[in-house]
Amino acid sequence: MAFEYKVVRQVEFSDTDMAGIMHFSNFFRFMETAEHAFFRSLGFSIHTTAPEAVGWPRVHADCDFRRPLRFEDSVEIHLLVREKGRKSLTYTFIFRKLNEQPEREVARGTLAVACVKRDAATGAMRGVPIPSAIADKIEAAPRELLGE
Amino acid sequence: MAFEYKVVRQVEFSDTDMAGIMHFSNFFRFMETAEHAFFRSLGFSIHTTAPEAVGWPRVHADCDFRRPLRFEDSVEIHLLVREKGRKSLTYTFIFRKLNEQPEREVARGTLAVACVKRDAATGAMRGVPIPSAIADKIEAAPRELLGE
Amino acid sequence: MAFEYKVVRQVEFSDTDMAGIMHFSNFFRFMETAEHAFFRSLGFSIHTTAPEAVGWPRVHADCDFRRPLRFEDSVEIHLLVREKGRKSLTYTFIFRKLNEQPEREVARGTLAVACVKRDAATGAMRGVPIPSAIADKIEAAPRELLGE
Amino acid sequence: MAFEYKVVRQVEFSDTDMAGIMHFSNFFRFMETAEHAFFRSLGFSIHTTAPEAVGWPRVHADCDFRRPLRFEDSVEIHLLVREKGRKSLTYTFIFRKLNEQPEREVARGTLAVACVKRDAATGAMRGVPIPSAIADKIEAAPRELLGE
Repeated sequence: MAFEYKVVRQVEFSDTDMAGIMHFSNFFRFMETAEHAFFRSLGFSIHTTAPEAVGWPRVHADCDFRRPLRFEDSVEIHLLVREKGRKSLTYTFIFRKLNEQPEREVARGTLAVACVKRDAATGAMRGVPIPSAIADKIEAAPRELLGE
Repeated sequence: MAFEYKVVRQVEFSDTDMAGIMHFSNFFRFMETAEHAFFRSLGFSIHTTAPEAVGWPRVHADCDFRRPLRFEDSVEIHLLVREKGRKSLTYTFIFRKLNEQPEREVARGTLAVACVKRDAATGAMRGVPIPSAIADKIEAAPRELLGE
Repeated sequence: MAFEYKVVRQVEFSDTDMAGIMHFSNFFRFMETAEHAFFRSLGFSIHTTAPEAVGWPRVHADCDFRRPLRFEDSVEIHLLVREKGRKSLTYTFIFRKLNEQPEREVARGTLAVACVKRDAATGAMRGVPIPSAIADKIEAAPRELLGE
Repeated sequence: MAFEYKVVRQVEFSDTDMAGIMHFSNFFRFMETAEHAFFRSLGFSIHTTAPEAVGWPRVHADCDFRRPLRFEDSVEIHLLVREKGRKSLTYTFIFRKLNEQPEREVARGTLAVACVKRDAATGAMRGVPIPSAIADKIEAAPRELLGE
């Protein structure tokens, strides 16, 4: 049962803005990158075209920004499963800047995603239970890791 | 005294992702676009290079996604000043899809920004009171507009 | 018969990079925005899901950058049809900065796109003649407009 | 003397568009990523704030797209120094998809960059010779590697 995953990225020039720091919208792109890498680490892809495939639309995202990231900074994105619902998952993401000592948390965010399936008849998306092949591999992280 | 502003954007092809909808990170870009247009409507630019200029780093951002936006959708981003602090501003953004009747709220987000100034001696950013030239033109929106 | 179209955009904060200017990759996004607006001006959408719909993958893109664009600059993107092939279109895009006198060309680019259709049997894309409904509305621009 | 560098990237969800493939503008972001990694491999950063630092504005970019890249594709970006001028560098970039056999070239592009310095008096950028510390480490790639 997995409850966390870490990826490391280097801030690219095109991630920055004229304030000289990473544009805040990219923190959300980085969260998603970690989410997808977490899924791959479990043997799944977030996106499959199989007819029975589920999708994971975002229902909520937030981020608290504490320190800026700059070009060529190395940042660890630490994904933690905060809540495992029957039809949804909520992740916490802790961003740590690795190229300075001591390593410091620079931002902390959340993604809440719903598990949905396309209704064959109407074409509409509707919430469905997380397939057991996936649910059986994921559990909520210990509270202390979440700093709660 | 201003407490709201509306901008309209059309979803572009490069705003979409392979799920066929606007990528969720772009909602945050659109919020910022509305924030900057609000400032221009008051006669300011969010970014000036004058030595006494203040900056507005983001300290928090969130968004709740209710319905997807698709390519060529026309979306109104309605900025409302939710809180006016001495050294910070918090905005609510209501996204409404205009090209369908009835017009519906598709997402609702928040940006909290701090007013900062670069310390001439140390180069560090520190929170400062919002300059009165700006503060005198902005007030918090009536609670009922915020749906609170 | 149409051979040109103009759109105007304002450079947004998220379009800039730490060099304080619009990131060069965004010139390509802006070209595409003008291309899609040109199609809409003819009564078409670049993207339709109808089974007989054609697609327009990019086969070539280039841009020469002469002057930078900055935050809040107003830029006209002037699309001109440079070549109309049986199965392809080539556009020239002239970027002019409008918020300075005299208005000056800041960049000039090209997009070459192929007209393709998904083969129902194999799923592969293959080049097809531009549907006459579209081809009948488009012609190549006069050479003098292209500065050739 | 260095004339080439390779980086590998995985296509992310936010790199894709509603056509299900990587948006063409991202090929240009990827070229720049390889350029900056090449500079780091030589012991430099593309961006320094030292007063005597040079900048590298883009003067030309192009790309020919042969095959699409999709989500989670692994792509090698092979940078080759095509031309080393006294005040400019021109790079060729060959994109190869690694997660399919045989590995195939999917795109090929160019970036031409000028070496510039800010004039202390006027603030304007002007072309300057590439500093010898950098120039001494770079040479043009053999023609046969460029497929010319």
